[in-house]
Amino acid sequence: MTLTDESTLLPNGLTVEAARAEAARTYELDRAHVFHSWSAQAEISPMTITASQGSYVWDGEGNRLLDFSCQLVNTNIGHQHPKVVAAIADQAAKLCTVAPQYANDARSEAARLIAERTPGELDKIFFTNGGADAIEHAVRMARLHTGRYKVLTRYRSYHGGTETAINMTGDPRRWPNDHGNAGIVHFFGPFLYRSRFHATTEAEESQRALEHLEETIRMEGPSTIAAIVLESIPGTAGIMIPPPGYIAGVREICDRYGIMYIADEVMAGFGRSGKWFSVNHFDVVPDLLTFAKGVNSGYVPLGGVAISPAIAETFAHRAYPGGLTYSGHPLATAAAVATINAMEEEGMVDNAARIGAEVIAPGLAELAAKHRSIGEVRGAGVFWAVELVADQQTREPLAAYGGSSPAMNAVIAACKANGLLPFANFNRIHVVPPCNVTADEVREGLAILDKAFDVADEHAR
Amino acid sequence: MTLTDESTLLPNGLTVEAARAEAARTYELDRAHVFHSWSAQAEISPMTITASQGSYVWDGEGNRLLDFSCQLVNTNIGHQHPKVVAAIADQAAKLCTVAPQYANDARSEAARLIAERTPGELDKIFFTNGGADAIEHAVRMARLHTGRYKVLTRYRSYHGGTETAINMTGDPRRWPNDHGNAGIVHFFGPFLYRSRFHATTEAEESQRALEHLEETIRMEGPSTIAAIVLESIPGTAGIMIPPPGYIAGVREICDRYGIMYIADEVMAGFGRSGKWFSVNHFDVVPDLLTFAKGVNSGYVPLGGVAISPAIAETFAHRAYPGGLTYSGHPLATAAAVATINAMEEEGMVDNAARIGAEVIAPGLAELAAKHRSIGEVRGAGVFWAVELVADQQTREPLAAYGGSSPAMNAVIAACKANGLLPFANFNRIHVVPPCNVTADEVREGLAILDKAFDVADEHAR
Repeated sequence: MTLTDESTLLPNGLTVEAARAEAARTYELDRAHVFHSWSAQAEISPMTITASQGSYVWDGEGNRLLDFSCQLVNTNIGHQHPKVVAAIADQAAKLCTVAPQYANDARSEAARLIAERTPGELDKIFFTNGGADAIEHAVRMARLHTGRYKVLTRYRSYHGGTETAINMTGDPRRWPNDHGNAGIVHFFGPFLYRSRFHATTEAEESQRALEHLEETIRMEGPSTIAAIVLESIPGTAGIMIPPPGYIAGVREICDRYGIMYIADEVMAGFGRSGKWFSVNHFDVVPDLLTFAKGVNSGYVPLGGVAISPAIAETFAHRAYPGGLTYSGHPLATAAAVATINAMEEEGMVDNAARIGAEVIAPGLAELAAKHRSIGEVRGAGVFWAVELVADQQTREPLAAYGGSSPAMNAVIAACKANGLLPFANFNRIHVVPPCNVTADEVREGLAILDKAFDVADEHAR
Repeated sequence: MTLTDESTLLPNGLTVEAARAEAARTYELDRAHVFHSWSAQAEISPMTITASQGSYVWDGEGNRLLDFSCQLVNTNIGHQHPKVVAAIADQAAKLCTVAPQYANDARSEAARLIAERTPGELDKIFFTNGGADAIEHAVRMARLHTGRYKVLTRYRSYHGGTETAINMTGDPRRWPNDHGNAGIVHFFGPFLYRSRFHATTEAEESQRALEHLEETIRMEGPSTIAAIVLESIPGTAGIMIPPPGYIAGVREICDRYGIMYIADEVMAGFGRSGKWFSVNHFDVVPDLLTFAKGVNSGYVPLGGVAISPAIAETFAHRAYPGGLTYSGHPLATAAAVATINAMEEEGMVDNAARIGAEVIAPGLAELAAKHRSIGEVRGAGVFWAVELVADQQTREPLAAYGGSSPAMNAVIAACKANGLLPFANFNRIHVVPPCNVTADEVREGLAILDKAFDVADEHAR
C-alpha cells in the first residue's frame, strides 16, 4: 500500500492527520447510522474514502489506492475531473433544481448531446435518477407500446435494484426478491468459456444461442413478449463479449416477432468498451437504450432511456404513465454536459479503445500465460474480466457462482495491500479503470494484479 | 405577470435579453430531444425556467413568478439557498462520488442528522436516489422481515413512479401500470369532506375508517400482509389531515397483527407540515419511514428509508438484498447536511408552523368565505389544499377525479397570468410555498389566488 507521507496533503487539501481524524468520525457514524447496500450490516467494516483524484482514491489512513474499479464502474472520466467539478459548482450557483414539467437549458443540452451519440434515431431522452429506474421505465414503454407483458432477459446479467429491475436480473441478487410474478423469463446467452450449448467455436456458440433464444420465444408465445433486454456486453455478470452475429441475430429475431429490443448500456455505455455505447460494436440499433453511470461518471445521480421514434410516437397523444420528481435534474444534466464534452475534447473514448488494445489486452495475456489460476481473460476498451479458476482443465471457478471463497478473499486483500482497489465478483477480478487512464497507470495496476494472482495460484491446481 | 424590466438582471446574472435567447434554444432542444414525465409528448408546451431565488422563479420571458408549488413540493428551503449552493460546490471540489460500500463523511453526517430527527429509534438510514426507490426498498425490507408479501395502501395516495411504487399508488396514474400482480390491496382512508363511511364528525370518520381497515385486514388474511403504507398526511392526493386517533389506531392495528407500519414522508416530511415529519403530529413511531424531496430540497437527487432496530436486526447477519450505485451519494448527502443545518439555524420548521397557523389558515378561511367555488380548505404548516367545487352543496368537484376541466385550466392560467406558479391536481389548488416563506409573500400569493378563484366562481353554481 502506498502510505502517504505524513507531511503530504491529500488532493482535497487535508493533511494525513486530519484525514485520519475525519475518517475515524466517519466510520463511527457510519456504523451507528448508515444501512449499506447488499450487506449483512453487522458483518461489514467499510473502508473510508476521504479523497480522490484521477485514477486514485485515498483511504482513511491516508493510503493512496489505484482505483481499478471506478467505484461501481461509473467514474469513466476518473475522479474529480476539474471541468465537471467546475460545471457542478457553476450550475449550483445558477439553478439547482426545476420540476420535470418545465424546460431547462442543462437538461435540453444534455439530451441533445446524448441523442447525438446514441445509435440510429434514438433521439428522445427520458431522464431518470439511475440505471434501475431507467430499466423500469424502458420496460414500461415496451409493454405499453406492444400491449404485451412478458420480458425476456438472460442469466448472468444485472439490471438494477428496484423490483422489476432486480427480477430482470440474472444473478443471485434476484433470488430473495423473486416472487414469480414480475413477468420475466430468463434464457441463456452466449458464453463460450462456460457454454450451455456444447459449442466449441464462437460461431457455433452464437448460432446455438440464437436458436435457443428463438425456441424460448416460440415456447413462451411470441405474442406475449414485450421486450428482450440485454446488456450489450454484460457487466458485473462477467464481461462476456457477444460472439460475431449474436446481437444482430437478436435484433432480427425481435423484428420478426414484433418484440422490442432494449439495450442496457448502464455499465457498458459512455466509452467503457472503447465506443460511446457497446452496442455500437455490433452495428445494431435497439428500440430503447438505457444508460446511467458513465453519462456523468456518477458525479451526480443520473440515468435515462433513449427512445426510438416509433415508441415516442405511441406517447405523442397518449400520456406516458410514468415520471419522477428529479427527471432531467439540472445539476445532474449539467454534469452530463460537462462530462460528455470533456470526454470528446480529451479523446477519452479513443483512449479507452487504444489502452484496451495496446496495454490491457497484451498485459492480461501475459498474466494469463504466467498464472495457472487464470482461466480466461476477455474484454474491450477499459472493460475486462479475469476469470480465476482452481483448475484450468475443469474450469472450476475459484469461488462458487453467487459466493465468495477464502481464495478470492485473499486475492482481493493482496490487491488492497499492494495499493489497488479491485472490482471483484464471485470468481472474477474485473479490470475497469477510467477511460482516461494512462498506460503507466495500467501497467502499475497489472503489476499489482500479477502479485495478487500469485496468491490465487496457491489455490489452483 | 411581473414583467421584469429589460435592464434588470435575473438572479443568475443573465440579462432579460440573454435569458430569452437561452430560453428559445432550451425550448427548441427540449421539443426535439426531451421526453417528459406523465405527458402526451406532442401535446405539451413546457414553460422554461431560467432562474430562481428564494420563493420565486423566472420564466423564459424574464417574468418573475411566486413559486407556490415548490416545483413538485420539494424546495422546502426555497430556491438557491446560499448555504446549500456553497455546500454543493465545496463537496464537488472535495469528493463528488464514492461507491456505497465505502464510508464517507458526508453520508455519515447526513445519516446522523436524519436519525436525530426521525421519531423513536429509527436510527439506521438507507439512502436511495428519490422517493420511489425509497418506497420500493421499504416494502422489500418489510416483506423480508415479516416473511409476508401483501401490502395495504389507501386510495387517494401517491407513492412513486417505479413498478411497485406506482402499483401502491391510489390515484389514476396507477391504472395503466396495474397488471394485478404487485401484491397490493387498496383500502379507503379517512376523508371527512368526501366520507366513504357516511360519517358526519371527525371522530366518527376516524373510528369508521379504522374499522374498515381492520375488516379489510381480516378479509385479506392478517398472516398475508407485510405492511400498511400511509402518507402520514397524503400529499398530491389532497392533503387530507388524518382525524385525531386515526394514525395511532393504524399503529395499534399493525402491532396487533404483526404488520409493519411504513410512513411515507416523501412529500410531507422535512418541515412541510410544520414539524420535521408529519407523523410527529400524531405521536406515533412507524417501523419504516421513507423520505426524499425536502431532505435536501431536491437540490441533488436523494431519498431514503429510516429503519427500526428490529428490522435492521433482521439484516444484521443476513445480507439485505438491495442496493444502488448512488446510495449515500456524497454530493446529495452533503446537500442534505447543509439543508438540515440551514433549516435548524434559521428556524424554518417553526416558521412553517407559524406561517400556516397565522397567515395561511386565516387567509384561506377568508377566501373560502368569499368564493362559492371553494368547497373546503385544509392543511398544516405550508401544506394546504383548496378543494374547488361546482356546487358547495353537492360538493361536485370542478374537475372529475383523474381529470382536468376548462374551469380548472382557467384557474391555473389566471394564477400564472398574475405571477403565481400553482400546484394543481384534478379539482384542487395546493398552497405549498417553502418553509421559509415570509408572511408578505404568502399574502402576495393569496391575493393572486383570490383573483383566480373569481375565475373559478364563474364555473360554480
